[in-house]
Parts: sequence; structure tokens; C-alpha cells
Amino acid sequence: MIHNIRSRAEALEAQLISDRRDIHKYAESGWLEFRTASRVARRLSDLGYAVAAGREVLKEKARIGLPSPKMLAACWERALAQGGDPTWMEAMRGGFTGVVGTLKCGAGPVLGMRFDIDALDLTESLDASHRPAREGFASVNEGVMHACGHDGHVAVGLGVAQILAALKPRLRGEVRLIFQPAEEGVRGARAMVEAGVVEGVDYLVGHHLYNERPLDEIVSGLDNYPATTKFDAYLTGEAAHAGANPQAGRNALLAAATAAVNLHALPRHRCGETRINVGRLEAGSGRNVIPANARLVIETRGTNTELDAEMYAAAVRVLEASAAMYNCTLEIVAMGAAQSASSSDELARQVKRVAQALGGIHPVEHGESGDCEDFTYMMRRVQAQGGQATNIAVGAHGVGGPQHSTMFDFDEGALKTATMLLSAVAADVMYEA
Amino acid sequence: MIHNIRSRAEALEAQLISDRRDIHKYAESGWLEFRTASRVARRLSDLGYAVAAGREVLKEKARIGLPSPKMLAACWERALAQGGDPTWMEAMRGGFTGVVGTLKCGAGPVLGMRFDIDALDLTESLDASHRPAREGFASVNEGVMHACGHDGHVAVGLGVAQILAALKPRLRGEVRLIFQPAEEGVRGARAMVEAGVVEGVDYLVGHHLYNERPLDEIVSGLDNYPATTKFDAYLTGEAAHAGANPQAGRNALLAAATAAVNLHALPRHRCGETRINVGRLEAGSGRNVIPANARLVIETRGTNTELDAEMYAAAVRVLEASAAMYNCTLEIVAMGAAQSASSSDELARQVKRVAQALGGIHPVEHGESGDCEDFTYMMRRVQAQGGQATNIAVGAHGVGGPQHSTMFDFDEGALKTATMLLSAVAADVMYEA
Amino acid sequence: MIHNIRSRAEALEAQLISDRRDIHKYAESGWLEFRTASRVARRLSDLGYAVAAGREVLKEKARIGLPSPKMLAACWERALAQGGDPTWMEAMRGGFTGVVGTLKCGAGPVLGMRFDIDALDLTESLDASHRPAREGFASVNEGVMHACGHDGHVAVGLGVAQILAALKPRLRGEVRLIFQPAEEGVRGARAMVEAGVVEGVDYLVGHHLYNERPLDEIVSGLDNYPATTKFDAYLTGEAAHAGANPQAGRNALLAAATAAVNLHALPRHRCGETRINVGRLEAGSGRNVIPANARLVIETRGTNTELDAEMYAAAVRVLEASAAMYNCTLEIVAMGAAQSASSSDELARQVKRVAQALGGIHPVEHGESGDCEDFTYMMRRVQAQGGQATNIAVGAHGVGGPQHSTMFDFDEGALKTATMLLSAVAADVMYEA
Amino acid sequence: MIHNIRSRAEALEAQLISDRRDIHKYAESGWLEFRTASRVARRLSDLGYAVAAGREVLKEKARIGLPSPKMLAACWERALAQGGDPTWMEAMRGGFTGVVGTLKCGAGPVLGMRFDIDALDLTESLDASHRPAREGFASVNEGVMHACGHDGHVAVGLGVAQILAALKPRLRGEVRLIFQPAEEGVRGARAMVEAGVVEGVDYLVGHHLYNERPLDEIVSGLDNYPATTKFDAYLTGEAAHAGANPQAGRNALLAAATAAVNLHALPRHRCGETRINVGRLEAGSGRNVIPANARLVIETRGTNTELDAEMYAAAVRVLEASAAMYNCTLEIVAMGAAQSASSSDELARQVKRVAQALGGIHPVEHGESGDCEDFTYMMRRVQAQGGQATNIAVGAHGVGGPQHSTMFDFDEGALKTATMLLSAVAADVMYEA
Repeated sequence: MIHNIRSRAEALEAQLISDRRDIHKYAESGWLEFRTASRVARRLSDLGYAVAAGREVLKEKARIGLPSPKMLAACWERALAQGGDPTWMEAMRGGFTGVVGTLKCGAGPVLGMRFDIDALDLTESLDASHRPAREGFASVNEGVMHACGHDGHVAVGLGVAQILAALKPRLRGEVRLIFQPAEEGVRGARAMVEAGVVEGVDYLVGHHLYNERPLDEIVSGLDNYPATTKFDAYLTGEAAHAGANPQAGRNALLAAATAAVNLHALPRHRCGETRINVGRLEAGSGRNVIPANARLVIETRGTNTELDAEMYAAAVRVLEASAAMYNCTLEIVAMGAAQSASSSDELARQVKRVAQALGGIHPVEHGESGDCEDFTYMMRRVQAQGGQATNIAVGAHGVGGPQHSTMFDFDEGALKTATMLLSAVAADVMYEA
Repeated sequence: MIHNIRSRAEALEAQLISDRRDIHKYAESGWLEFRTASRVARRLSDLGYAVAAGREVLKEKARIGLPSPKMLAACWERALAQGGDPTWMEAMRGGFTGVVGTLKCGAGPVLGMRFDIDALDLTESLDASHRPAREGFASVNEGVMHACGHDGHVAVGLGVAQILAALKPRLRGEVRLIFQPAEEGVRGARAMVEAGVVEGVDYLVGHHLYNERPLDEIVSGLDNYPATTKFDAYLTGEAAHAGANPQAGRNALLAAATAAVNLHALPRHRCGETRINVGRLEAGSGRNVIPANARLVIETRGTNTELDAEMYAAAVRVLEASAAMYNCTLEIVAMGAAQSASSSDELARQVKRVAQALGGIHPVEHGESGDCEDFTYMMRRVQAQGGQATNIAVGAHGVGGPQHSTMFDFDEGALKTATMLLSAVAADVMYEA
Repeated sequence: MIHNIRSRAEALEAQLISDRRDIHKYAESGWLEFRTASRVARRLSDLGYAVAAGREVLKEKARIGLPSPKMLAACWERALAQGGDPTWMEAMRGGFTGVVGTLKCGAGPVLGMRFDIDALDLTESLDASHRPAREGFASVNEGVMHACGHDGHVAVGLGVAQILAALKPRLRGEVRLIFQPAEEGVRGARAMVEAGVVEGVDYLVGHHLYNERPLDEIVSGLDNYPATTKFDAYLTGEAAHAGANPQAGRNALLAAATAAVNLHALPRHRCGETRINVGRLEAGSGRNVIPANARLVIETRGTNTELDAEMYAAAVRVLEASAAMYNCTLEIVAMGAAQSASSSDELARQVKRVAQALGGIHPVEHGESGDCEDFTYMMRRVQAQGGQATNIAVGAHGVGGPQHSTMFDFDEGALKTATMLLSAVAADVMYEA
Repeated sequence: MIHNIRSRAEALEAQLISDRRDIHKYAESGWLEFRTASRVARRLSDLGYAVAAGREVLKEKARIGLPSPKMLAACWERALAQGGDPTWMEAMRGGFTGVVGTLKCGAGPVLGMRFDIDALDLTESLDASHRPAREGFASVNEGVMHACGHDGHVAVGLGVAQILAALKPRLRGEVRLIFQPAEEGVRGARAMVEAGVVEGVDYLVGHHLYNERPLDEIVSGLDNYPATTKFDAYLTGEAAHAGANPQAGRNALLAAATAAVNLHALPRHRCGETRINVGRLEAGSGRNVIPANARLVIETRGTNTELDAEMYAAAVRVLEASAAMYNCTLEIVAMGAAQSASSSDELARQVKRVAQALGGIHPVEHGESGDCEDFTYMMRRVQAQGGQATNIAVGAHGVGGPQHSTMFDFDEGALKTATMLLSAVAADVMYEA
């Protein structure tokens, strides 16, 4: 079956590239992927998958870091104008842009595969040296750009869907293709987990294109994802004329400044690395007005979820005290979260074996994650329920600027490799199990 | 001659109102008064005044709080399109929007009269209860509004110019009508003083419409103007990834936060009231980036110029140390300044006598200034060279919202009173002296 | 009667000086004046006064700023050894060192006179140029010194007691001679007020020797005493090894440091002068231990009691928030308090008239208080119940160092003047009223 | 020869215990070990060693954390009274309490062995459950106690000296026995290194008794000593009356408070663990005085010398800026320092082999250091000049309280083990090399 999968993936290569370029051109950022998600839903449905979307796959209260209602409405309209599927878009109004396609193949193991679909808030370079610009698929949506490779992930997900649909008669068990919104800012995974999308999953596989690795290299299990909590703190005091009536104000700027310094003074921890950063502080209005408002944009990190949670709790304590000190009120808004996690050894080894069997791929068994990723919510849930989970790095030999830069691009040859590998892993799991 | 002046002012009333409404409709904020100033210059010239404008009356280096070059250029074009005088506007390019009209009447005292001409950055209410909106002279320039009465001051200045031109044969000495830009933010007066516009002035008279006072009341000398210094502080550090490389950053946000709290901790002073306010703080960019930039919007105040200067010097010390603490660089940009001053007793009494002689006006001899005013630069210079100076409040019985609000309006009857009073004071000074 | 009083005071001069020197030699600081107070009680009793002392004249819970129980016990023993009166000392155990002597002379007004009796924690100079050292009456109690003139106040109180006892047949009404402990640190007056010692008082007179004024000058009414609150804040966190276990500590030092800066950042007030000072901060133990303890020594001030109360309330808020920020507990211990007050005009004028009648004295009717004084608690209580109160400055032409310095001394001629003036005021009030 | 050494060590056991108890009873803390060092010098001299002491073995300027001159003088006198050797004490006046004994045995390798000799500032428990108290050898010097085992190190050093002197005919090369003062607070080693005591050393061996390890266990090489810098910062401003003249002060307390919070806010480092602690802060004097003085007691740490040096440099920057912010001067006084270091693999293996050959000892090859140690200065210097160095842990099965506690004690059986092991290592090095 392995040989079969290689040729199927090769046959799909033009479609993978075309899909990726379509998604790239109509880039949509987190919770606003109305066009992307609705077209994915239609394609999965056309391929014979049972498709769930919208509130079925995203728990409303667990979503974090949403854009304004105005932005949600405007981008929904834009998506419609840019070719979103009107039927599927209905369920997605208000930012419910997740999709899960299920293929049931009788008794057997449940395999989940996750593909993240959102772009970044970044204006793409139009320089001639930047291929998307040169070849006409640069983002038409100003200020939004796929600069992290999720456009490729979507294309791979659709390719895997097509191959597995074709192989259905030879598979046992169930495959769930999970298309997740809002990975940037680590905002979307938790709401899918809480809606139950990985309930009963025995094997969970994710992947990410890695520009720093050569085209033919994969890492079958990424480890040591750090945990992080991202949140904004709003302080509200009371304005007053700074010259005539200074004692009448309640100074939100000084509350924020006191918080900022003392947040950075939170102690180091004996059990591992921790981090805190106030990345942004905006406070006040006029020069001669006691500032009535302030916002702090904050994140904590830890080498594990417990350390991050301790940092977050301590940060909240500092913020509450700073607010109290200046008689201000405090509101904290969750903006993102990821947990610590590592890939399951056994599944990583299985992926490595499959890669070796496919040939032409140099598999590395384990690697360091580098940075936070909210797929960790899904990994930990599956591992907690007795299953196995892994996140795979697929070398994509960067051809443009670094990740999250306006010149980011990758070698589209990686799309075939990823599609082939993931399909083969699925076949391996669902055939042998 | 007094009676004569009353009837002349009454005859001008329609023109005063029409001028005020024209200026109101084409409101221009500080250093951008190209239309206003150029039309004033033309009118003065037409009336026979020797007119100086632009760099002749504004020392370039002494101007503070200027808009961006882009804004200066755009508003120059707008002024041209809205009826600015192209000839006079030439000299005003780049924000040289001051005008001085001189009428020489032979040997005798030199009298200066100052009129401030700028509007505020505020979007005018279009509510039907707001007369300018109802009667069609609300500002057509979005985000700019005469909400402090300077539109009236311009009209009064032109009225006084007309009356004095007519009386010229009966006057001795010299009158200088000084039209000053950028009083809001206390930015413009110093540059006129340093260009020499009050050199040799024996008597200096200013006025301001006061909505809190009834229509027929004037204060012949306002006192105890507090001193103030307005400035922005820019801190520049270095960005770094807050998770991966925190030690590599130079944190401008923490430098700014440390500065803010310690600026407010500057000690009180045995010799009088002082104030300091950080009205605004903006720092940082991304949540996971060590902030590389910060801006603080600051003002100091003191019951006299020396106290304000001590506060400013101490504030600079705190800012420099905060920058050094976080290895940041610091740039301080002057944004405004006013000095402490009080009206000269003798001149205030003379104004009061003139008001009594005119009849129908209830003069109060002295009153508290309330807030800062950069006319103080001119007052102190004239007093320092042995002359007398006064600033007069003219009751204008506010009919809309308070000063600096989007519903601000005043009783236009005050225009006639002010024109009459200032003309009569001029006649009194130049006849008797 | 006036002439009579002058000669009586002159006859007492040697005793006044001898009494002052005895008190000076056995200086006792606040709440520890066992010898001083007990000998005063015996003298008043011998002169025929009804004497109350101890808990009768000091409300236990209202006493503030007490020394440790160990110190109280040790100084009680020292006082006994140095000639304290054992009978009266019994009631004073534990720091109840106030005395009130009452002389009832039939129906008539009630006059209170207050004398403060405590020394300072200061080691007296033994330099030969310092008269107390040279002439053998320097303090024998190391670390305690009368450097504010209260030794003189005690002597004057005893002199007045003797003169009024002699004049009793010619007086009407009631005189209460109030000897108050612990004026330094403004700690004692409130506890006497709350014990009722000025209940029913119609006229209240205090005095203070002023070295900055010439010997023959008095101020009949001191005004504008500022209000103050003096308190210590104790923060308690938890120690931990700073290298091995930094996150386990709760850092009281950082809580205190945050409090200190933010206390000084409390805003100025439109209604008058305010002050705050953290005069002392002690925190921590070993270099490598997260500090578990901190103490801040603080005072607030205001030009009136309300402003001081606002500052104190704001300071408590800052301290509570700082403690909460670092998970510490906070205890605030009251250490002293004085209210704002001014002398009653009518009584000040009466004192001036009496001074003029006595001759040889240059009376000034009103003067600025300069600094805080807890006699204000008594003044305000008497004024609130419809009576009159004044505090008198008596010129004492300083002959040594300034107040509160180790070389402080005054011209003992002032003792006679003060005794004469206060006796004459009493006679005037109780004869005429 | 090994068997020979075991029996020699066993024969010395009573002397080892007696020496340890003598040193324990007359405990002396860092730079004050006049009795201890002078008696060591005499013993080494008596055994035939060439002895250097005082300034010969301690570079004056490199000593840090010295007691006051008064304390140095007083403890010198105490040492004389308690049996110090008057001849050797002469060279040690002023805190030059190091001793080096050299035994030259012809051509061959140079072996250094280091023994630290100081006690702690701690008052020893007199509880009957504490053996030193029960058996009469508790410290007679109040406030000073051997609570870290250095008393044992001295005894072991003298035992090794005796055994090697006896073996001299069979040895080649040179042995230097280095008795180092002031290890507590990591103050003494650097001054010995800078005086040249490890110049030319090929093999350097240290040891420390470890109560947490069983009696018969040794670790032949301790690794990963963290680096640390210990220092005090003195801020000097200017006092002023906080009520009357607040602007006249230069507030050292606020400078110190600002420094404290911002020191703790120094960022974490990507390359390893760092620490900073302000362990103590003392500032100010009177409640109503702007504080003119402050002291901060600080330490930095890092997993290597470079990280610690970065933290120290950043801390100095924060302190300098805090001083500048409040117009204060800053003085930084070095109080201690240790470097990062690890034992040399080859030498650690050699020690392990010797231990195995001796029998009855369970050797562990490598172990974690746990905490800072200034022997690292010597280790790094020897390693830098091409030699090998190791620090050995000798299990001493704690019988009382933990290290640095008032109940600390150890099993004296460890003295024999340590003496035997070190002597055998010396024999091995000097025989085989």
C-alpha cells in the first residue's frame, strides 16, 4: 500500500500547489477564516466525509482572542465576495471557523489529524524577489498574509483527505480530519478540544512545515513544547484635570507602570525556566489629564504547564494589587494559551518506520519544538485518555524570509512529502491496528 | 473720542459676526493657520498697515510642537483650496503662520495688541442644538474646531484694525497688531517674542473671551498665570524575543514605567504649588517582543517660572536615569511652554477707567487667570523692558458646552464689546501718553 | 493684682531655675516620665491641688507610640532610684505618666493650662561650651535629653501652680493644670483628651519657649498648626533560599520598596499643602535569603486635618496593595497624631492685653506655628465645645544649638516671664469672667 | 604503601578528634582566625614544613568582606588570650590569617591541598542534645560557631601533614598544604590565588565533609559550582526636613527602593540560570527627615562565571541609574565572589581508584556541588595553567541540625576517612607521577 500512496501523492502534486496558492492569495487571519473553512467543508463533503463545522466543533465560551464583532461581520462579507461557500459559511458567522471531516471505515482505531488554517496580521511583500508576488498569488487582503505555512497545511489536509477517501475500502476504524482556526496566538485548539473533537481518538497526528530543515528531512516527534498564557489587562480609573484637581483622579497609567515593573520582578523558579513579558503598554489620553485607562499586553511562559500556571497566577496577583493601589478596576481578557507537551515515543517511532518505508525521506526520531503551539491541547487530551499523539516537522527548505516575515515562502515540494507521509501513517495505523 | 468709538464698533457688528463665522467654518489648528493668517495679512494690508508675516515674525528654532512636514504641506494645500491668500501664504509655508500689522502715527508710545488665531484638534458637534451646525458655519475641516473662542479673537483683531486705521489722524505713536499662531498647547508666543515682535513695546494688551462671565462684564487685568513646560520623552531600546532571548533586549517599556512612577514621586516644594503629569504612555509592539520603544507625554507646572523650571530639570534627571537603567537612549522634544505672569496694576486700572467711560460695561479690576497662557511670554518681556502689560477677560456668556468641548459656542455680542473696549484702550493710550 | 503677680513671679525665679535644672538633669522621654510626673503630682498635692494621675487622666487605648514593656519597667525602676515619688509612681506603672491638678475657687469659668513634660531620645553634649555640662545639670540619663524646653515648661507649670494657690481667695471658677506626657512624636495629648481632662474647659492656654524669639517677646496666639499622622508599617512575608528556591519566598523587601516609591507618588491636592515621607525603611536579613520582614516609618501631613486624613487613607491603600502584591501581611501601628488648629482670636487678644498690662513684654498678637503640636487635640476639643484656646510663644533667646540638637539651651530668664504671664492670664480670666 | 596509610590514619584518630574539638571550642570567623591559623603554622613548622603565613600568602588588596579594624584588633587580643601562637600571630595582624606549609621531596609533581578554617557568625546551641554542648567543646566565643565542618577540615589538614611528613623519604615532588581563611561568604580564596599559592601546582585537591552522605561514601569530584558575586551598595543623598523643605533633600531611600525593584526585574537569560537578590535594605533615620543614606546587601548568581558577570554588570548599571535619578552618590563594596568550576575528570577518576584501593569506602565518581564555594578560584587557576583539580565530598552522616544551624554536628569517624583518603591520594600522585 505504501508504494501506492507515493504514486497517489505524486499524482496530486499540481492540485496541492494550486490549493496552497489559492489559500495563500485569500489569506484570512484567526477566527476570520470564513472562505478557507467553508471551502474545506465543501471539499470534504464532496469527497464523502461526514462534515461538522461551526458551533459543533468549537465551544463558544472557550474561544479566546476574538476580533471585534465589526471585524467578524466585515470579513464574513469579504469571504463571501471572494468565493466562500455560502452554505457552509452560514454556520460560521461570528467566528466559528473550524471544520471536522470524518471517514468511518468500520471497527478499528480512531485516528485524528489536525491542520491549522489561519494567516497572520502582516502585509505581504510585493517585491519581485518574492515568488508569491512575482507569480501572482500574493495576498489580496491587505494586512493579512500566510507567513507561517498554514496555507500549505490546508493543501496537505485536502490532499490527505482525497487519498484516504480513495483508500477507504482497505482501511479499518475512523479518521477525523480536524481543520483548526486561530493557531496564531494559540487561540483555537482549546475550543475544539472542549467541543469534543478528539474524544475517543487513539492516534493523533499533526505536522508543521519547517523552513530551517532540508526538503527531504522529517522529524517524527517534536518534544518539549513550552506552556504559555497570553492575556490583556485593562485598568480603569478616573480622569481629572492634572493641574487643577490632581487628587481627584484615579491614575490607571501609574497602576499599569507599577504592574509592569513588578511583573518583571516575579522570581525565577527552582523547577525550570519561566518567562514573563509586558509586550505593550498603552495608557492615558491628554497631556494634562490624569490617565483613566491603561492596557497591558502580557504573556507568561514555563517549561511546563504547572510553571506557566504559577507565573500566570502570580501575574494576576500583581495586577490586582496594582489596580487596588490606584483605586482602579481590573479586567483580564484571555488572549491565548498553550500547554507543555511532548510527542509519544511509540507513535513517533511508528512515523519514523513509515517514513523509512516510503523511501526518499530522512527521518529524525525526536526534535525540540522551539516555540509554543496550541496543538498541545489536543496532544495532552489524547495522551490523557490513553492514546498517542505526535507532531511532525516536515522540512520545507525556506526560500524567502524567516517565519512571520513579509518575505516568507517555502519550497512547495514539501507539500507532496507531507501529504504522502501523513497518508501513509494513516494507512499504517488503520491497516495494522 | 470714546463715544465715537462706541458707534464705530456698533456699526461694525455685522462684519465682526461674519468674520468670526468665516474663521470658525475654516478652522485651522496650531501652525496650520495658513488660510486664517494669510487673509488677516491681506485685510491689514488693505487697511494700510505695514504687514510682516512668516519668518519675519516667528523665529524658526523657537517654534515648538510642530505638526509633521506631511501635515504642514497638506494643510497648506487645503488652505489654498479654501480661499487662503496665495500671495501671503507663500511666506507661511512650513508653519510660519504669524502676522504683525503696524500703524505708525508719529512720535509717541508703542502699543502692542495680541490676538491668537488657532483652533483645536476636536471634531465639532453637528447636533441641531449647536448653533454653528444649525446655522451652517460649523467647521468643514474634520477633526479641527474653534472651541476656545480664538475665532472671535481674530474677528475682534480685524475690527480693532479697522477702527484704529480710521482714527489714525488723531493718534500718536505706533500700534502693532500681533496675530499669533499655536496658542493651544502654549507653543507659538515664544517664537514671536524671539523674533522681536514686542521689542520697544510700551503697552501690551491681550484679551480672551470668557464664557463663564456675563456678557457685559470684563476683567481689566488677569493675574497669577502659572508656568508650565510640556514635552514628550522618547525612549529607544532594543527588541528581542521575550521567550527565546530575553536578556538580549533593552526594555524601553520598563524604562518608561520606572520613569512614570518616579516622576510622580518628585517632592513637593516649600515655595509654592508644583505639578507633574505623565498624561500618556505608549510602549512596545508585540506581546512576545521585548519593547524597543516608548513615548511619555508629560507636563510640569509651577506657581512661578522658577518652580516650573525646577520641576522640569528634576523630570529630565529622572528620565535620563530611567533610560540609563535600561540601556536606552532618550530624546526629549519640547511641546509647549508658558511662563508665570500677572497683569501690570497701572495698565489694568487704565483699562478699567476706559471701560467705565464707555458705559454699559461692568469692569472688575483683577481676576485669577485659571490656567496657563503663552501670552505670558510677551507680557514678561514687555514688563522686563520697563513697559506695562495686561490680559483682559471679556465676558461672553457661554451658550453651548464648556471650553474645549465639541458643543462650545459663545454669545457673539461679546465681539462688539471687545472691539469697542480694545479700540478705546488704544485711543486712550495713544492720545494721552 | 497684676503688679502683685509680677513681684510674686520675681520672688520665685530661683526656684524656677532650680526646678528646671532638676528636671533637665533627670530627663525622661515620652511615656517614661515617672520621676518627673510623680514629683509634679506631689508638689501640686502639697500646694493644695486635687491631683489626678495615671489611668484617670490617660485613656489606655488612646495612647500611641509606647516604648516596650521592658523599657517601661526599667525606666520605672530608674525613676525610683533617682528620686521619683513612690506613692504617685504606683499609678503610673506601664506609662501612665500624666498629671492633672485642679484648684476649685467656686462658681466661675473653667481654665485649663497645659504643660508638656517629656525629653527627647538624644545624647546631651558634654562640651564645656554647653552650660548644662559646665554647670553640672546635664542629663545623667544617657541617650535622653531635654532639647526642646519642656524642662522649662514643667518649672513654669509648678511656678504658676504656686502663684495661683496663693491667689486662690481672690479667684472664681476652676483651674486645671494639665501636665502631659509624650508630646514629642505627638503621642500623648489625645489620650488625655479622651480621658476627659478638657471636658467643660472654657479657656485653654498652652505655651512653648521659642529660642528664635528675643527674651522679652511673646506671641499671644499661634496659628495654622498643620495636621499630621505618624505610623509604622510592618510587612511580613516568608523567607526562602534566594539561590535554591527563589519562588518559595514572599518578598517583604520588594513590597516595602514598591510601597515607598508609590507613597511618594501620591498626588498633590487642590485644597492645600500635603506631605508624605517614608523616613526609614528596614528590610531583610541575610544576603542570600528572600527577605521576610520589612518596616516602614512614615508620616503624612496636611494644612488641615481633612487633607492629612485623605493622605493617610491613601497611604494605607498603597501599603495594603503593596502587601497583597507580594503576598505579605501588613500591620499598621499608630505612632503619633496632631490636628490642625489655630488660636482663638478673642483669647489671643486677651493674652495680649494682659501682657501689655504687665509691662516689659512686647506682645505679638498672632504668629505662624511652624510645626505640628499635639496640644491641637486639646485646642480643637475646647473650641468644639464652645470654649476658647490659645497657644503662646514665649521668647527664650536661644543660647546654644537649635531645637532638638545636643547643644540646645535657652535663657532661663524666660521662665520668669512665662510664669508671670500665664499666672496673670489666669487671674484675668478668673477674676473678670 | 596504601595499607600503611590506613594504619597510620587509624593511629591518628584520637588526635584528629581532639584537634577538631579544640578548633571547635575556639571558633573564629572569617579573617579573624588568629588562634586557629597561628597554631596550624606552629604545628606545620614543628613537623618540618617550610611555613609561609600572613601577607606572603594573602594579597592585601584582593581580600574582601573584612571585619572592622576594631573587630580585627579585638579578636587578635582574644586569640592571644585563648592560646594563639604569639610568634606566628605577629604576621597575621589585620586579618592575614592564611597559612601554607610546603614539603619539598625532590623533583616531581607539585600537589596542592586546601583546607578552609573559618567558622560562622552564629551562636551555638547549648542544648543537652547537642554533643559539643554536652561534652564541653561548644564554642566559648559567643556569636561564633563551627556549623559547617571547617573545624574538621583543619584537623584533617594537620593529620595529612603528619602522615606525609612521615612518608617524605618515599615521595617525589612537592606538597603544599594551604590553610585558607574566610571561605564563608566566599571571601578568602581569591587573595591566596593572587598571592601565588597555587602557582606551579599540577594537582589540586580539596575536600568538604557532607552530612547528607553516609559515613563511608565519598564523591571523588564535585561539579557545576555556580558563580556568585556578593556586594553592598551604599547610596548617599542629603537630608532635609520632610515637612518644611521636602524639595531640598536627595532621597537615598527612594533611590534604594527603585534599585531594589528594578534589580529583581533584570531579565532571565537564554544561556542558563541566573539569580539576583537584595537580601537587606536599610535606609533613612528620622520619620520626618528625607533619608540621606541607604545600604543594599546584594548577591548575583549564574550557572557559570560569564552569566554571573553579566548579572553583576547589569546590577551595577541599575544601581548607578537609581543613584543618578535621586541625585545620590553610589559606592559599591565587594563582599565575596566565587567562580563556576567542575572537577577534572582524570583526577576524579584517580581519587576514585585510590578510594577503591583503600577499601571500606564507597566512591562515587561525580556529584553536583549544590552551592557556591570559593575553592573554585583555585581550581580554575590550576586548570588554566594545565593542571588538574578536584573537590571531594566526604560523607559525615550528620548527627545534629543541618549545615549553618545552631545544632550542626557531624560523625567524627569522617575525620579518619578524610585523612586516610587525602594522604593516599597524595602518596599516589607523588609516587606514581
